[in-house]
Amino acid sequence: MDYRSDTHAVGANNTPRCSSCIMKASFGNGEAEYSRIVSKASAKLLNSLWEQKRIPEEGWPEHALELFLSWLACHDTNNRVDIATVGAGEREGRVVCPLVRRLHCNLSHGIGRSGNIGDIQPKALGSSMLACLANEFALHALQEIGIVACKAALVVPLCTGMALSLCMGSWRKARPKAKYVVWLRVDQKSCFKCILHAGYEPLIVDPIREGDALVTDVENVNRILEQRADEILCVMSTTSCFAPRSPDSLEAIAGICQEHNVPHLVNNAYGLQSEECVRRINAGRAAGRIDAFVQSLDKNFQVPVGGAIIGTFKQSAIVPIAKFYPGRGSGVPSRDLVLTLLSQGRRGLLETYENQRRLFLKMKKRLSSFANEIGECVYEVDDNMISLALTLSSIPKEKQTLFGSILFNRGVSGARVISSTTNVTSVEGYEFVNFGSHCNEQHGGYLNMACSVGMSDAELDELFSRLATTYAKFSRQNGLFVPRSESRNYPDSDD
Amino acid sequence: MDYRSDTHAVGANNTPRCSSCIMKASFGNGEAEYSRIVSKASAKLLNSLWEQKRIPEEGWPEHALELFLSWLACHDTNNRVDIATVGAGEREGRVVCPLVRRLHCNLSHGIGRSGNIGDIQPKALGSSMLACLANEFALHALQEIGIVACKAALVVPLCTGMALSLCMGSWRKARPKAKYVVWLRVDQKSCFKCILHAGYEPLIVDPIREGDALVTDVENVNRILEQRADEILCVMSTTSCFAPRSPDSLEAIAGICQEHNVPHLVNNAYGLQSEECVRRINAGRAAGRIDAFVQSLDKNFQVPVGGAIIGTFKQSAIVPIAKFYPGRGSGVPSRDLVLTLLSQGRRGLLETYENQRRLFLKMKKRLSSFANEIGECVYEVDDNMISLALTLSSIPKEKQTLFGSILFNRGVSGARVISSTTNVTSVEGYEFVNFGSHCNEQHGGYLNMACSVGMSDAELDELFSRLATTYAKFSRQNGLFVPRSESRNYPDSDD
Amino acid sequence: MDYRSDTHAVGANNTPRCSSCIMKASFGNGEAEYSRIVSKASAKLLNSLWEQKRIPEEGWPEHALELFLSWLACHDTNNRVDIATVGAGEREGRVVCPLVRRLHCNLSHGIGRSGNIGDIQPKALGSSMLACLANEFALHALQEIGIVACKAALVVPLCTGMALSLCMGSWRKARPKAKYVVWLRVDQKSCFKCILHAGYEPLIVDPIREGDALVTDVENVNRILEQRADEILCVMSTTSCFAPRSPDSLEAIAGICQEHNVPHLVNNAYGLQSEECVRRINAGRAAGRIDAFVQSLDKNFQVPVGGAIIGTFKQSAIVPIAKFYPGRGSGVPSRDLVLTLLSQGRRGLLETYENQRRLFLKMKKRLSSFANEIGECVYEVDDNMISLALTLSSIPKEKQTLFGSILFNRGVSGARVISSTTNVTSVEGYEFVNFGSHCNEQHGGYLNMACSVGMSDAELDELFSRLATTYAKFSRQNGLFVPRSESRNYPDSDD
Amino acid sequence: MDYRSDTHAVGANNTPRCSSCIMKASFGNGEAEYSRIVSKASAKLLNSLWEQKRIPEEGWPEHALELFLSWLACHDTNNRVDIATVGAGEREGRVVCPLVRRLHCNLSHGIGRSGNIGDIQPKALGSSMLACLANEFALHALQEIGIVACKAALVVPLCTGMALSLCMGSWRKARPKAKYVVWLRVDQKSCFKCILHAGYEPLIVDPIREGDALVTDVENVNRILEQRADEILCVMSTTSCFAPRSPDSLEAIAGICQEHNVPHLVNNAYGLQSEECVRRINAGRAAGRIDAFVQSLDKNFQVPVGGAIIGTFKQSAIVPIAKFYPGRGSGVPSRDLVLTLLSQGRRGLLETYENQRRLFLKMKKRLSSFANEIGECVYEVDDNMISLALTLSSIPKEKQTLFGSILFNRGVSGARVISSTTNVTSVEGYEFVNFGSHCNEQHGGYLNMACSVGMSDAELDELFSRLATTYAKFSRQNGLFVPRSESRNYPDSDD
Repeated sequence: MDYRSDTHAVGANNTPRCSSCIMKASFGNGEAEYSRIVSKASAKLLNSLWEQKRIPEEGWPEHALELFLSWLACHDTNNRVDIATVGAGEREGRVVCPLVRRLHCNLSHGIGRSGNIGDIQPKALGSSMLACLANEFALHALQEIGIVACKAALVVPLCTGMALSLCMGSWRKARPKAKYVVWLRVDQKSCFKCILHAGYEPLIVDPIREGDALVTDVENVNRILEQRADEILCVMSTTSCFAPRSPDSLEAIAGICQEHNVPHLVNNAYGLQSEECVRRINAGRAAGRIDAFVQSLDKNFQVPVGGAIIGTFKQSAIVPIAKFYPGRGSGVPSRDLVLTLLSQGRRGLLETYENQRRLFLKMKKRLSSFANEIGECVYEVDDNMISLALTLSSIPKEKQTLFGSILFNRGVSGARVISSTTNVTSVEGYEFVNFGSHCNEQHGGYLNMACSVGMSDAELDELFSRLATTYAKFSRQNGLFVPRSESRNYPDSDD
Repeated sequence: MDYRSDTHAVGANNTPRCSSCIMKASFGNGEAEYSRIVSKASAKLLNSLWEQKRIPEEGWPEHALELFLSWLACHDTNNRVDIATVGAGEREGRVVCPLVRRLHCNLSHGIGRSGNIGDIQPKALGSSMLACLANEFALHALQEIGIVACKAALVVPLCTGMALSLCMGSWRKARPKAKYVVWLRVDQKSCFKCILHAGYEPLIVDPIREGDALVTDVENVNRILEQRADEILCVMSTTSCFAPRSPDSLEAIAGICQEHNVPHLVNNAYGLQSEECVRRINAGRAAGRIDAFVQSLDKNFQVPVGGAIIGTFKQSAIVPIAKFYPGRGSGVPSRDLVLTLLSQGRRGLLETYENQRRLFLKMKKRLSSFANEIGECVYEVDDNMISLALTLSSIPKEKQTLFGSILFNRGVSGARVISSTTNVTSVEGYEFVNFGSHCNEQHGGYLNMACSVGMSDAELDELFSRLATTYAKFSRQNGLFVPRSESRNYPDSDD
Repeated sequence: MDYRSDTHAVGANNTPRCSSCIMKASFGNGEAEYSRIVSKASAKLLNSLWEQKRIPEEGWPEHALELFLSWLACHDTNNRVDIATVGAGEREGRVVCPLVRRLHCNLSHGIGRSGNIGDIQPKALGSSMLACLANEFALHALQEIGIVACKAALVVPLCTGMALSLCMGSWRKARPKAKYVVWLRVDQKSCFKCILHAGYEPLIVDPIREGDALVTDVENVNRILEQRADEILCVMSTTSCFAPRSPDSLEAIAGICQEHNVPHLVNNAYGLQSEECVRRINAGRAAGRIDAFVQSLDKNFQVPVGGAIIGTFKQSAIVPIAKFYPGRGSGVPSRDLVLTLLSQGRRGLLETYENQRRLFLKMKKRLSSFANEIGECVYEVDDNMISLALTLSSIPKEKQTLFGSILFNRGVSGARVISSTTNVTSVEGYEFVNFGSHCNEQHGGYLNMACSVGMSDAELDELFSRLATTYAKFSRQNGLFVPRSESRNYPDSDD
Repeated sequence: MDYRSDTHAVGANNTPRCSSCIMKASFGNGEAEYSRIVSKASAKLLNSLWEQKRIPEEGWPEHALELFLSWLACHDTNNRVDIATVGAGEREGRVVCPLVRRLHCNLSHGIGRSGNIGDIQPKALGSSMLACLANEFALHALQEIGIVACKAALVVPLCTGMALSLCMGSWRKARPKAKYVVWLRVDQKSCFKCILHAGYEPLIVDPIREGDALVTDVENVNRILEQRADEILCVMSTTSCFAPRSPDSLEAIAGICQEHNVPHLVNNAYGLQSEECVRRINAGRAAGRIDAFVQSLDKNFQVPVGGAIIGTFKQSAIVPIAKFYPGRGSGVPSRDLVLTLLSQGRRGLLETYENQRRLFLKMKKRLSSFANEIGECVYEVDDNMISLALTLSSIPKEKQTLFGSILFNRGVSGARVISSTTNVTSVEGYEFVNFGSHCNEQHGGYLNMACSVGMSDAELDELFSRLATTYAKFSRQNGLFVPRSESRNYPDSDD
């Protein structure tokens, strides 16, 4: 016998002996009617969400999110309330630790089926619905953020690097002669290593200096593709990056790729929050070919690390990528995205992005003013609208790292000092000079800081307060001469 | 505009541009049908609970409890999902701290209305339903536990003492000449102080010794009622208590009360778990009058401290008590009871009680055997089926308390040493000799321990292991002579 | 054997065979040092809170609240992590339902001990610390809110009515001849019924009309005290109330009470948020005597229903009140208050109050303007800074209630229509004419609305939007003539 | 100013005016001492866990798990309680939705760093500690379960298929000529597709029939390796599988691999719970080479889907695999494993496995007896100790699937009907005859059911009850003749 059937037993002798409590009589038709309204309203809210599969305009309060999770969970067989499921398989969604079960809101089956991340699990309809909602919400969000021509999105329980690798791997069959991936150097290991992970060799194209900025060496890419397009699986470009590197010239690259029939993969890691990155993706798509663009869930949507969104401009283009994923995966990134977007609503999501734009300008202005005070300058990299670089010419090269770690200890996480170096860094056997600076060229050292989505005004104020006091103290202790006006220390002047 | 209406916006330019995700097409009629079944099953489970208002036979799993809480919460106006409530009153169920809100499962209105704990709050139908379910479950539980003639139960957000006071106060109007409450002494402060709280003076009747046990001085009670029944508000008897006190002779008291038309209030604090206490309540009711009996929620149902159940044998008798409560109250005790009983089911609840019975016998046997080993004995108080008392004649009186505190430090919470004393303890101006021993009579000291609902076999084993090692070490360190056979140290021999 | 001792077993054959993982070596001295810093910082945060027992200036983030709860819980014996406690008593804090346990953050012992709400439970030091912090925070909050002379505060797990009753009962012993409580009529049942609950008879003093407002009939009170001060337990005045009733003249009453040596109890239900109520309490204290003032936790601090704060101006005055409470009580109201104030910080708390002030003025202005539009007016009751009353002279008396219920159905909870009536309402046998209007006098009907702490600007906008559309529709459907200017319908003109 | 520094402000005028509450004085030295003991005990518990990094012998109660999570979280910079971190980077662990934040216990940084899953994140020491503990616990668990020679374990936030692919990819550099992976056919898509994902072509080796069982075609493997060892990246064998397939002959394969210097990868998906699978892994390692063996977290440890453990017999062998992972990953699978093992303790974990063994034998016995009753038989596959196969010769081939879906609708999830088919199934372009049956050979159809870790006695009873009633009804409705004795329908007899 189980809790679902014939649940309300009478006493041992089978005679009901319960009298009613003093409140019982008070519940009349009015209350019953209201209860029906309530139940209907809940059902309507949830059904309408499921039918439309779009981010609501206004965010839902937390109790509605909990209702949603309860409702979803009931769709998984192991949470049925009408019949006790008997698990006679090798994988029945069992969770032995109650705390873990709770942290997963009773949704334990993950997403996908053996061999296909996009399949529905008959045992876990709720988990499958969640995965579907996540994909739809992701697409809706990409479009609202500005990539209006996007046609399909897939939320994968993989970080950016692995997701990029998944795309590359899925193109293998179609390009049997390919051995190489053209990689527009950005000194971040994941997006380099993912090429190796996919089984290809990188052809590294260093950026070139244009003013303060490091920009795409378009000509070089063109030359490579002219020479050996067939051997190239794809070109991987990057949008979001640390100044002074600029987002790559997607427009040019997309054109070249189209001309040579080479796929173009965009590493748009945290670029959704930047109007410029979004603009370049759109421009690239208009000017040529972008086969897929990949973005991090955590960096763009303020969720915990764990997932990425793969976007394509053709609906059919997402299918081979999804099918290439071998097996199931965690449903947590999908859940986190759906909950976050339900909680923010479309309006809330866009507000966080507008905020980032406003605060970035504020940060830039204040950093410039601070630079001016201490006789440094901020690299002019106008199309990088997330990251800034402050020259550190007043600090001897050998002390720059120390300055960075003092800042970190003062609670300024995320600001990073980049010292110039002629040392060689090896990443999986590939050697890089001056790794971290995105190019071999030497420079006078700089401090990177970023204004990403989620930053607040108060945080920004605190940042500059700590920066100023830390710098002042550091200068004093290290006997730095802090002139009011000193020309910027150009990289090449160091060589 | 709010999240409830027209929630799924199209893009800024009002053209829907979302294409469907790869999973969307996979959700066909089968899934839609299943989803309908799931929703229906959930609705059925909840509606059937609400219609029957009885403890289910089998316990519900946690995800069903969460579904239940979500469903209830939606019935409170501030959690409506179809319309955003605008609070224009002085009390709108607002909870500013998200953690607190969550710990209350969005149910913030408490129970009752201004001036009546049994009223439905139109703003908080969900909270009111919870209160009603709590009363019904309480009644059902009392009947299942054995008090089959019980006709009404009220869960109050008050502990036993306050609940006893509530009963007494509610009888004031009906007994305008009453000044006193006859109190059958049991050395526990709450049930004494509640008489003063209700505005009456206690007439204290000490128990009398019968064998090892301390039993009701029935004759004395009879004499008092014969002399001044009119001045007596009620007689308060106690069932559950520490050995060697026995449960009071409810049968005799109930008869006397009926004869003299004096109400009879039973302090059944943790007596539900004892067959003997339940038997006495039934016998009392059969033999005469019991106007109300009060039991603790936490001690009988393993919930946190905070509530009590008032039971009556006439449905009408509960009304004046409920109406006497001035105002609202916390809904937490009601919630905790309902969740616990839903989670255990009727079967689970009764199992915890059967377990207590089994373990009590085991504890008694082991304690007797331990007593035998160290030359002490266990008081013979056969009708106390929760608490036991082990004589401590081998430990000098002045060291007995030390022994108790060592046990406590070894993690044996709940075991208490009672030393005999001629000192006077004053409770709110009333003086007691030998407070803690339930009577003035001196004795050789004893150790109380109880086996209450929730104890486990492993705990019992551990208890005796620690008791033995602690006693052995204590004996050695204090040079106690531990004979194998020593007659029990009768209380009077100390005088 | 238990999880606390010798916890890390080697393999079955007792040979440790574990090799280290690839990450292990990476954790060096730096990390160990940082971990020490972290642990120290946590300890410092908690210890400093416990030492100072004051609301922090800035609110704590949720993870710090969770740390605090974990830390507290470890102080209860049943949560010890160094030794498994063996419960051998009748009450061991056992919680059988995991969900319930979690909703109580493992704090199950409640507050107080048998017979004293202010005692420390040796078994439950954590729960006791929480109770102590709640009292200290309450006192700190009262002082910060403006009652600077307040010397003691007690958080009780009782609502306002029961807390008022507790105060009255605790004064019984000191005033043995007292039979009555002078009650300044306010039509709210709890504060009336609590007099009966405490065992006294109310002497009802109706307010008198002064302009639009209903104010204290000071003379009448004075006359009563002159005649029979000895028979009076106390005078109970009220601050927060629905317009057009004004807060009572505490200054005058306090003076009269002092003159006649009669205690003065203030029902300050939701008055902490009103500068005027706070001002009157201070003025009363300066001008004479206020023996205790009681306020609701939920209405002033946005926590769920369940508790109240009793404040006194002498530290010693709180002791007999605390001691009068017979037994334990729920720890939930104390917990909710502490968590809320930790989460808001002193600054956040005061901000919520400043917001209420700002929004009340806005509400008043908009309501006046709306009144003007529809030819009604807002009662001028300047010293009521929470509640407003809009005349409803344009709606026939027999349809006023219908208008109120339509508003409620449109999601405007809390707004209440008060129609004048010559009917008699009986509350526990006492008869009131025109109950709800605070006096017998007839009037033209009005709509009450309140702006209490927690209201938002958006809510206010929505309120007036719904009010306007509802009124317009109601007018049309009921063929009301809506003049632009109609003089206010004075109550007495109805008689 | 922030909540961490100088937190306890005095009143606005800077004069402390707080008096102490009635409880304050009661907290004396005893309580302070106890508090110190408690804090020390907590610290000791956590530090000792961190030092030993081994599964405790006995499970921890939930409140200790929560303490652990709070403690870990404080180690991440964004949860510091001593200083407010200012995030000036592109990834600061921000979580905008409070519900999501809570579901991650404030641990939002995931594991690994850009480009290395095994690196410590300076910003997220707590998350890194969790990852390290997960690896250590995994290793400890593998050893306790019986793979005593295991030397390293890596918990990856990838399911089995992706984890297998990770291993294969990491060996690419060392085997530059390799193009193929020898795959011992098991009809489960993930472990096939992961070969393609890694960039290799499968060489498929069908199992051969031996009695009822399908066993490894060792000779065939040997022949392939003799011919083209250099072109083979590795051989992938499988342990856990559906009857009548047997676990592969790891001993033989390992020997052949060693002989030909070809890596050997074991797909041990849910094999930890099977003594036979564990025995084979050990035997394989003793007889030859196993380079890595991969197991699912969810199927072996009853956690939600999302992770896998990669085990190796050399500590150094795990390093290239870890380094090959390009980037960060979700920390959830690591967290779930650690919480589960802390909650179970070593003893609890092993008990779940013993239970599986006991219940499997029970299931086998009951299934045989049921088979006997209905004239079917259970395939004799003695070395498959998880999955069983019941012949369905009495049901016409075309109705077998229907029977399976009826069982599913009756709540028997996991039981699967395998009908024989000559159809061809294409998986990513590779064609399989009779996919699902693990070989092309035709058979009479059978029903698979498994007894995996977590199954209970009650579930087993219910399973057979539903199986019997479903079968009986199905037989009646379909007019099946159910003989008492019918010889088993050998696959080949169907051809």
